Amino acid sequence: MGIEEALDTELTAARLNQLSQALSSGMFVHVRNMLHDMAANDVAHILESSPPKSRQILWQLIDQQQAGDILEELNEDLKDALISGMSPEKLAQATSDMDTDDLAYILRSLPDTVYQQVLQSMSTQNRLRVEQALSYPEDTAGSLMNTDTLTLRPDVSIDVVLRYLRQRGNIPDTTDTLYVVDRSDSVLGGVRLADLLTCNPNDNIRSIMADDLESIPVDMPDTDVAQLFERHDWVSAPVVDEHGKLLGRITIDDVVDVIRENAEHSMMGMAGMDGDEDTFGPVLKSTLRRSMWLTINLFAALLAASVSNMFEGTLEQFATIAILMTIVPSMGGVAGNQTLALVIRGIAVGHIGQSNSRWLIGKELAIGFLNGLIWSILVFIAIWLWKDDLALGGLIGGAMLINMTIAGFAGAAIPLVLKKFNIDPALAGGMVLTTVTDVIGLFAFLGLATLFLMS
Amino acid sequence: MGIEEALDTELTAARLNQLSQALSSGMFVHVRNMLHDMAANDVAHILESSPPKSRQILWQLIDQQQAGDILEELNEDLKDALISGMSPEKLAQATSDMDTDDLAYILRSLPDTVYQQVLQSMSTQNRLRVEQALSYPEDTAGSLMNTDTLTLRPDVSIDVVLRYLRQRGNIPDTTDTLYVVDRSDSVLGGVRLADLLTCNPNDNIRSIMADDLESIPVDMPDTDVAQLFERHDWVSAPVVDEHGKLLGRITIDDVVDVIRENAEHSMMGMAGMDGDEDTFGPVLKSTLRRSMWLTINLFAALLAASVSNMFEGTLEQFATIAILMTIVPSMGGVAGNQTLALVIRGIAVGHIGQSNSRWLIGKELAIGFLNGLIWSILVFIAIWLWKDDLALGGLIGGAMLINMTIAGFAGAAIPLVLKKFNIDPALAGGMVLTTVTDVIGLFAFLGLATLFLMS
Repeated sequence: MGIEEALDTELTAARLNQLSQALSSGMFVHVRNMLHDMAANDVAHILESSPPKSRQILWQLIDQQQAGDILEELNEDLKDALISGMSPEKLAQATSDMDTDDLAYILRSLPDTVYQQVLQSMSTQNRLRVEQALSYPEDTAGSLMNTDTLTLRPDVSIDVVLRYLRQRGNIPDTTDTLYVVDRSDSVLGGVRLADLLTCNPNDNIRSIMADDLESIPVDMPDTDVAQLFERHDWVSAPVVDEHGKLLGRITIDDVVDVIRENAEHSMMGMAGMDGDEDTFGPVLKSTLRRSMWLTINLFAALLAASVSNMFEGTLEQFATIAILMTIVPSMGGVAGNQTLALVIRGIAVGHIGQSNSRWLIGKELAIGFLNGLIWSILVFIAIWLWKDDLALGGLIGGAMLINMTIAGFAGAAIPLVLKKFNIDPALAGGMVLTTVTDVIGLFAFLGLATLFLMS
Repeated sequence: MGIEEALDTELTAARLNQLSQALSSGMFVHVRNMLHDMAANDVAHILESSPPKSRQILWQLIDQQQAGDILEELNEDLKDALISGMSPEKLAQATSDMDTDDLAYILRSLPDTVYQQVLQSMSTQNRLRVEQALSYPEDTAGSLMNTDTLTLRPDVSIDVVLRYLRQRGNIPDTTDTLYVVDRSDSVLGGVRLADLLTCNPNDNIRSIMADDLESIPVDMPDTDVAQLFERHDWVSAPVVDEHGKLLGRITIDDVVDVIRENAEHSMMGMAGMDGDEDTFGPVLKSTLRRSMWLTINLFAALLAASVSNMFEGTLEQFATIAILMTIVPSMGGVAGNQTLALVIRGIAVGHIGQSNSRWLIGKELAIGFLNGLIWSILVFIAIWLWKDDLALGGLIGGAMLINMTIAGFAGAAIPLVLKKFNIDPALAGGMVLTTVTDVIGLFAFLGLATLFLMS
């Protein structure tokens, strides 16, 4: 291990370049050897960073024994695409060493017939293990959970535990704490590996166990699990059923994936994309997927146009009104979107609840009004100077004040209302908000213009 | 510990309600007792979820001994606000038990005079420790690093290590691996706590140490550190200087904060907000902060209006053109934003580099063209039916095809170009893109209309 080895990120980029050169010059044996020497997560990273054609070639050059580990690390789109090209036997073989939760995650996305075939080709023990994992709903603690949990009894001496561990010869990955349970498998507390190493071997487990260990109910949503891990700096936590019985444990590596996925979902969702969208996926698939959002936007744009249509008379007489009419919706859209992003983030991290949402709406309304005031004055001056028309400046300024105030209110209220109706605010919020600010903005500006200029 | 204790998230919401009720009815002693019984991270969560007035009262009711732990967990805005109200002595006292990296993080945000005073009121040992931490630039591995690292020599027997640990009595938090170093403190490998518990005590450290341990260079950007942790499922990793000498270690809890902060930065940045914006911060501060983005947008909107202004003659003759002119920029904006979100995410997770960026731009251009084709046909039909005007439908369809194709190209190229110039694509990308799609959209539609209708 040297400092060169450590520069992993740059190394990956360099290897990616080397690989794509070797691929394009047809040096397949060389590529195969390079892939063979890499860790599964690096191969996954390279697959995700490659265009579809290179992906297919790379996948064929990959060691079948590595396939399962690599599949585990891939984004859903790419994983699905590669799995659909594998025979059930190959799939069963490739996935035989996987963690239960990861295997269940893959199986969930398979078509029913393939799924049954894969299950059939597994050993009985593995099948039972996986069927158990599949019985927990997606996006809950149960689906994140591993069942490879070591447990201790409270009245055993530490010396006995140490001898047992030595005899066992290994401890499951990412284990930082062993759970102490009673006869009915209820969690009594936890003993950190660090404590086992530092305590007096003649004591018993009860004397060193932390009894304030928090357990996670198996049906807790995975976003709540992630919040708990973040807030408490946990490395692992026990999962229990409704009677407090230990079912398994969740480890930080799976939680990091949840955090990353949720964050991507919020960010991509606000642009009308699936959080799991494959950056280097095929063109046609991406085109169709993005159409949905464009359809909705077309209706929103036509709605806005129909508002303008109501003021055809005004627009016929005053071309300047037409020229300036996009400014008011645009400023409202930006102001509203700032509020929206803030509130969606607040909901995601669990800061916004019943006790403070009214205050928050009031605050954002106030900010909208204040910003509206600032910008209506500035735009009034700008338009007055540009078009040398005091009335026009006043009209656009007035419309902007109205629109930005409403934008502040709508940016805070829309995600909260959507959440009440169990609609994902990250996904639907932006489009609803833009429609509101466009319609109100055009209505205010064209309406005021009609009122004052046409009378 | 029961199942009730476990429902922590709901509990926090319930406690928040209780607290705000107790606060508003002036039961301060009760509030103080409630706060006293809570963990620091829960108090921090409650402070972050409270409006400014309640925050001040709550902060005064908090146990001074807890203050440091709570500060550590707060968002930057709120932390700064609370710290600015504390005397340097109080601050030094409150922060005396903090991890070096967290303390350095707080000190960095202090005004110079306060900063010096806080340093002066510290013990010499703490001051040296902190000054060392402050010498590493922000957002690098060095600034995330803790120096409380236990090291081993390779030729010691495991039995000796076990006795040493027992005598020492404790192991630093979130330690999963002890690092093995040579005489010059160069990292040779690592021994997991789990291995110490399961191996034969008569072996020596070298025989059980993993020598493929990757180290992190102290100047690696924190986003790269986060990617490595995510990709390798690490709980901790050693940090080394340019000669491979061990300086400290980074733990997953700090990395989770980096992942969360970066994700929030991307999401909030796309809406023109600071990732650390305080949801319940004061109105005036928020208003001024958001002004910046609105200023830029006003210029963008005026630029778009000046494009329309070039076609004043057309708009004077055809009010329908004015009515429909917002549709083309709107569709281009949505299509471009989808691409933008995808590319920004791809840059953030390290998927996009030299070898594949050209392919990606080509792909997004193709998707933009295909979507442009679909929507130009649909909008052609829609406008033809609505306005009963074949030529008008053709004009808007043609303009949409042009704008959406360019939007696909621009959505991919803009963030890549911005990154080349070291400008944050998450922050600047959206505004640049919207300006491009607005200007091109208006220019294409009004230009085509002028060409065909005015001749």
